[in-house]
Amino acid sequence: MIAAVAFHEARARIAPYIRHTPLLPTPSLRGDWHPNLTLKLENLQVTGSFKVRGAFNNLLQLDQTQRSRGVCSASGGNHGVALAYAAWRLGCPATIYLPERASADREARIAAWGAKVVRHGAVWDDAHEAALEYAAKHDIPYVHSFEAETTIAGQGTLGLEMLDDAPDADLFLVAIGGGGLISGVATAIKQARPHATIIGIEPVGAPSMKHSISAGALTPLASISTFADTLSPRMVSQTTLDLARANVDRIVLVTDTQMLTAMRWLWQEANQLVEPSGAASIAAIQAGLVDVSSYKQPVALICGGNAGAEPVFQAYQQTVKD
Amino acid sequence: MIAAVAFHEARARIAPYIRHTPLLPTPSLRGDWHPNLTLKLENLQVTGSFKVRGAFNNLLQLDQTQRSRGVCSASGGNHGVALAYAAWRLGCPATIYLPERASADREARIAAWGAKVVRHGAVWDDAHEAALEYAAKHDIPYVHSFEAETTIAGQGTLGLEMLDDAPDADLFLVAIGGGGLISGVATAIKQARPHATIIGIEPVGAPSMKHSISAGALTPLASISTFADTLSPRMVSQTTLDLARANVDRIVLVTDTQMLTAMRWLWQEANQLVEPSGAASIAAIQAGLVDVSSYKQPVALICGGNAGAEPVFQAYQQTVKD
Repeated sequence: MIAAVAFHEARARIAPYIRHTPLLPTPSLRGDWHPNLTLKLENLQVTGSFKVRGAFNNLLQLDQTQRSRGVCSASGGNHGVALAYAAWRLGCPATIYLPERASADREARIAAWGAKVVRHGAVWDDAHEAALEYAAKHDIPYVHSFEAETTIAGQGTLGLEMLDDAPDADLFLVAIGGGGLISGVATAIKQARPHATIIGIEPVGAPSMKHSISAGALTPLASISTFADTLSPRMVSQTTLDLARANVDRIVLVTDTQMLTAMRWLWQEANQLVEPSGAASIAAIQAGLVDVSSYKQPVALICGGNAGAEPVFQAYQQTVKD
Repeated sequence: MIAAVAFHEARARIAPYIRHTPLLPTPSLRGDWHPNLTLKLENLQVTGSFKVRGAFNNLLQLDQTQRSRGVCSASGGNHGVALAYAAWRLGCPATIYLPERASADREARIAAWGAKVVRHGAVWDDAHEAALEYAAKHDIPYVHSFEAETTIAGQGTLGLEMLDDAPDADLFLVAIGGGGLISGVATAIKQARPHATIIGIEPVGAPSMKHSISAGALTPLASISTFADTLSPRMVSQTTLDLARANVDRIVLVTDTQMLTAMRWLWQEANQLVEPSGAASIAAIQAGLVDVSSYKQPVALICGGNAGAEPVFQAYQQTVKD
């Protein structure tokens, strides 16, 4: 268990560096959903996802000497960008290992913040192993994207913000990748509002948390099949599994098609373009997997917004008149 | 002059139907801009732009009999979608005239709310004439997209929200199309905070307000050349000209390329995908046309978000795994 004080300390620590993202009441335009449905727009966070909360909470607990020697991690996704940004902001060298499958766009975004990028292995787990070795060899901290308690406490600050901004919220919908987000958010919320319901959402093709909970122990998936790259680690971690077991009420699974439909809904209803994981909470409602009508105020966490928007800008480039 | 009470009445009138959009403190990630730069995210408004404020303020002042007989307007842009939505919401038939150049996407969005669509003429002015005739013939209200005082009072409610949410704001950057937005916002703000500075932004290729102000009278542009379709009427209106002359401090002009650069900036900094007009206020800062450093808290109004995002969803469709 992570103590409530750890979340509050993390919140005070990272406050100067992150955004308190808006909580938007969003009755749907057609009025066919819950009138008190509220979106926590964490896609508006610095670097486009919640990951920067955990990244800052890690780096800010290193002393000046440690920071000057640098940190290391592995991520082909939002954690890599968030850590690269936090490291740049705090004047700390960062080395980020990326698996070969990580996109060139991700690599460019990480490198843009001055981090050293190393490509290694086919998938995240390979890059992770190599990055651990690098960190050990150079005696620098390895900043885990979801296992470390400092990371989880950072992500949990999102829960505190929602509690403050939505005093009546009794249902929270949170996507699950490695589980760092939901374990932090659920733990922070349940300590303050024990009767709130926390529902986790995973892709049908990558149900890593549900798989380990069903097995009763940490168990890797045999295969992964989803377009939601930020929701597809092969396995959650011991800490996130333990915290999710204690604090998450239920896990539902959504298909890629349902997430894409939800991405379109978020665009049509609120002009928010998000990545698949960012739409997972909406997909769960839209697919009828969660009966929001039995709650007073459901909150859907929109956890990340880093969609591939480049085609839009290229299309506008063609229409420029000067 | 529109009295302060008109804005306050409009605000109370439309409140149940619109969103109080978030005001987001957004120091830039690189820290190279004003640390108190704040974004008014009106792209999160119902139907994706401020236009719905004026639309509701018009329709809600009709009585039940008038509403049942319907309304009419001309718009190939955000006003058309906003009016169609407001009419649908209030059970009021709507007929919207579109010029031939309006996109099929716009027509579909307007029709999706049950409005009758009539294509007429090459540009807005042609559609506008025909719609006026239709309204006269059927003796129903014509809801002007920027001239009517009820429309302007509705748009001005945005000013009241910014005043409430940013007590220290002393600079407001607002894009100008027909001038309905800026004349409402500037009038509402100057009444409450006379020393605030209001700067208008127009495209270099469609400086309709600047042109009429320089000429000292309402004067149409000889030609229009910009990709910002929602900022390109041939002429502003007498009311918006008068109010802008009284309450807008300065107008600056931005190029299409500057707006596109600002669109990319908004995406990178805050994951907000917006249409060109929505990025005009940022373009003015980024291009060095406004020295924000001499103000305490600059607010950039992001007035609309209806960018052409379909290519993004199509690309994701290709990657769906189920």
